[in-house]
Amino acid sequence: MNTGNHAHITNTRQARTAMRSGQWTIPTVYQLPGYVQANLAIVPKSIAYDLLVYCQRNRSACPVLEITDPGDPIIRQLADNADIRTDLPKYNVYRNGELTEQREDITDLWRDDLVAFLIGSSLTFDEPLRRAGVNLSPQVWVYRTNIPTTPSGSLHGSLIVTMRVMTPSDAIVATQLTSRFPFNHGSPVHVGDPALIGINTSQPMFGEPLESISPEYIAVYWACGVTPQQVAIDARLPLMITHAPGHAFITDMTADRICLP
Amino acid sequence: MNTGNHAHITNTRQARTAMRSGQWTIPTVYQLPGYVQANLAIVPKSIAYDLLVYCQRNRSACPVLEITDPGDPIIRQLADNADIRTDLPKYNVYRNGELTEQREDITDLWRDDLVAFLIGSSLTFDEPLRRAGVNLSPQVWVYRTNIPTTPSGSLHGSLIVTMRVMTPSDAIVATQLTSRFPFNHGSPVHVGDPALIGINTSQPMFGEPLESISPEYIAVYWACGVTPQQVAIDARLPLMITHAPGHAFITDMTADRICLP
Repeated sequence: MNTGNHAHITNTRQARTAMRSGQWTIPTVYQLPGYVQANLAIVPKSIAYDLLVYCQRNRSACPVLEITDPGDPIIRQLADNADIRTDLPKYNVYRNGELTEQREDITDLWRDDLVAFLIGSSLTFDEPLRRAGVNLSPQVWVYRTNIPTTPSGSLHGSLIVTMRVMTPSDAIVATQLTSRFPFNHGSPVHVGDPALIGINTSQPMFGEPLESISPEYIAVYWACGVTPQQVAIDARLPLMITHAPGHAFITDMTADRICLP
Repeated sequence: MNTGNHAHITNTRQARTAMRSGQWTIPTVYQLPGYVQANLAIVPKSIAYDLLVYCQRNRSACPVLEITDPGDPIIRQLADNADIRTDLPKYNVYRNGELTEQREDITDLWRDDLVAFLIGSSLTFDEPLRRAGVNLSPQVWVYRTNIPTTPSGSLHGSLIVTMRVMTPSDAIVATQLTSRFPFNHGSPVHVGDPALIGINTSQPMFGEPLESISPEYIAVYWACGVTPQQVAIDARLPLMITHAPGHAFITDMTADRICLP
């Protein structure tokens, strides 16, 4: 477990303050365990309706936890006193579907027509799984499947999943436990053979290539919040700003309190 | 349990066909037990974004199960071959916030800019509660609370709830069981004293006035899918079409299969 150079930070507000001042630029994976983390997608208002309908139609991949009013950079429900332009450790900036920049602050890119989507992340349930004694593989793989999502406007594409490898009995506990997090991808979308959903484990989008899964383990797959970002990239939107992979928004909500506002 | 004059109807498609032909005009309460029922709100595209953001911000009251493309009257995800203009038993038509008509068919009111929202309904979990041996009060009361909802655009107002009265041990089972239905209002929002959330039980929005609750029983409250309809009525939209109270849309999804698409 990587606690980076921020072991002295014990609450979510301190964490966001450190990100705001540029002192925290490392990934949020396994940081502030027990707090809900969220994926970010910022798009112009002109595409926000299509994206919100896309998220509704593909709820397991895209559980929207908060959506800001156009031009308003302040998070109102998930966190106290958070500014979406500064309070993540790292951002990706896409223009016409191309990654053009990586930033630690997007204040000077902010516009009156931008809308921020905060989308549930499976980073949220890694800590509850660990606490339940589920032995998680040291890494999480991300794959594109052949499962189609339901389109909305110009947004379409196949489902992206995270894959974790564990024992069969842990897979059962993980299914039970993640069912309690319907707004953070909920239960798995698949268990077992990766080929059944079009995955070649040696070709992940993120993570080390995996040649084979040892017979005493089983792979378990959850819908991934990167899916809506990827369909927006594929649709070549003029502008979209996301969190950099692994550098999520840390909310003030505890994962154990599943009834999000 | 009212089986009306439709005891011969055993599947959801037959039910919708009977509604389409005008043979079924009675309430859907307790009909086709075990299938997900949905509240309907049809609004012009110009207000659909604000309404969808309102639903996201007030998810326990307004879990959106499906949203149609503008002008498309066909349900694509929740049911096979369903037309939203004809396949409910009864509709309410609101103009500028006033109920101006009740209809069994809205085909001639349909327009290219209309968007239909299907929203989860607590009618869905009455049958699973009954099957679990929870003795439900013979009626369900609907109240307006003093709990504020989170506004979106011109839409704002207080939360509306359904209230059921049961024994304390049944209240515990009902809390456990409805937690399994996050997309049909999920767990209760309150239990016990109605005054704590601004309810005077003798003044329901729907249901018979209730003078008092017998001491061996306890009241349990769930967020109600009528909330978004009520805030839209209060905002005096030029046009909104809803299901008539108790006359919901019957989907092909079973309540036991909680992972809705």
